[in-house]
Amino acid sequence: MHRTKVRVVADALDANNTIAAANRADFDRAGVRVVNFMSAPGAGKTTLLERVVADLPGVRVGVLEGDVQGSMDADRLAGLHVPVVQLNTDGGFGGECHLDANMVRSAIPALPLDDIDLLIVENVGNLVCPAEFRIGEDARVMVSAVTEGEDKPLKYPLMFRACELVLVNKIDLLPHLDVDLNHLLYNIDQVHPDVPRIVLSARTGEGIDAWRNWLTRIGAREEAVV
Amino acid sequence: MHRTKVRVVADALDANNTIAAANRADFDRAGVRVVNFMSAPGAGKTTLLERVVADLPGVRVGVLEGDVQGSMDADRLAGLHVPVVQLNTDGGFGGECHLDANMVRSAIPALPLDDIDLLIVENVGNLVCPAEFRIGEDARVMVSAVTEGEDKPLKYPLMFRACELVLVNKIDLLPHLDVDLNHLLYNIDQVHPDVPRIVLSARTGEGIDAWRNWLTRIGAREEAVV
Repeated sequence: MHRTKVRVVADALDANNTIAAANRADFDRAGVRVVNFMSAPGAGKTTLLERVVADLPGVRVGVLEGDVQGSMDADRLAGLHVPVVQLNTDGGFGGECHLDANMVRSAIPALPLDDIDLLIVENVGNLVCPAEFRIGEDARVMVSAVTEGEDKPLKYPLMFRACELVLVNKIDLLPHLDVDLNHLLYNIDQVHPDVPRIVLSARTGEGIDAWRNWLTRIGAREEAVV
Repeated sequence: MHRTKVRVVADALDANNTIAAANRADFDRAGVRVVNFMSAPGAGKTTLLERVVADLPGVRVGVLEGDVQGSMDADRLAGLHVPVVQLNTDGGFGGECHLDANMVRSAIPALPLDDIDLLIVENVGNLVCPAEFRIGEDARVMVSAVTEGEDKPLKYPLMFRACELVLVNKIDLLPHLDVDLNHLLYNIDQVHPDVPRIVLSARTGEGIDAWRNWLTRIGAREEAVV
């Protein structure tokens, strides 16, 4: 009984990986690098994109916005004159709490792959399920806001392990929180030793240059990832 | 094809509701009121419980802690000398991003129902799926931290609709955020008009009396809910 259950889960993830590989092939053919951008709700993903996507030297950016419903984040980014495609998980996907490879595949025809070098996929705000589904990306980036507390890496270890970069955001609020930044960084090392991390504030701009540079290197294919 | 898919989802939720009703019958027999406590990761659920659970006049509290893995929150609350049971969704439940009625049912034998008046179930930190699964509760309470931004009711409307009380937490940080509290309250009204809400800060204690009083009324069976 237990063995049957495990096999079904494996099959579902296998199917996802098969579709992710097909996405990957399409992205490679078009010469597009892809970043899967994940965090809890309200950690600052959209603001961190607003700060940089219109200003990556030599890199043309597109954004795929994943939300359960609505298009507020896409509307914010469209004002920056980058191509943005909205993908809602409640339209035929049952209100899913994450993006999977098939959802991203359904959006590919709407994406101007020939006109961009880097596609950033902003996932649904959730620290659990998005980490389980590859979508054909080159790299996964997750945001951990210091306002969420030091314990999140230990409570949601899969998310912190399943990424190539951690952005530690909202550090401007540290003087007003009972949160120890070094303790948070220590906990990140407990679950994903030596994962690259950038400590920053989308509000004040501290650390944003490092984030911009990282995305530029990925988009310009100067950095090997995954 | 589409119709088949809808039926399968309905069946799964029907099965959940059947088990939730069985939980409800067990809780009623023991005279225990149950609160399903939900939020995004790091919104302050555990701290909001730490502030009040040992100090509800005439109400004996127990806590069921839901986490993907670990027992950090349960350990924090156990220091307050209230009975705490840990439920991990990665032990036989596949690392689920929410609690459902069957998971809660599996924990009932470990709960001291005869010795408590009020059971608080701290759900997995997630603004999507926990709202879809009844667990046999009397009332659902959700926490929205102002640090998450004003737009969360519009992006995660099901969660804001599926509750009888909204706690708007971390208001001590408002002077340091680009967040308008009135705009957040307005957006809550857009998706769930007139839902009761308490504006508070677990850190400074502002508003905590109102939260304590609400829980006390539920636990003392002075307030009709759901």
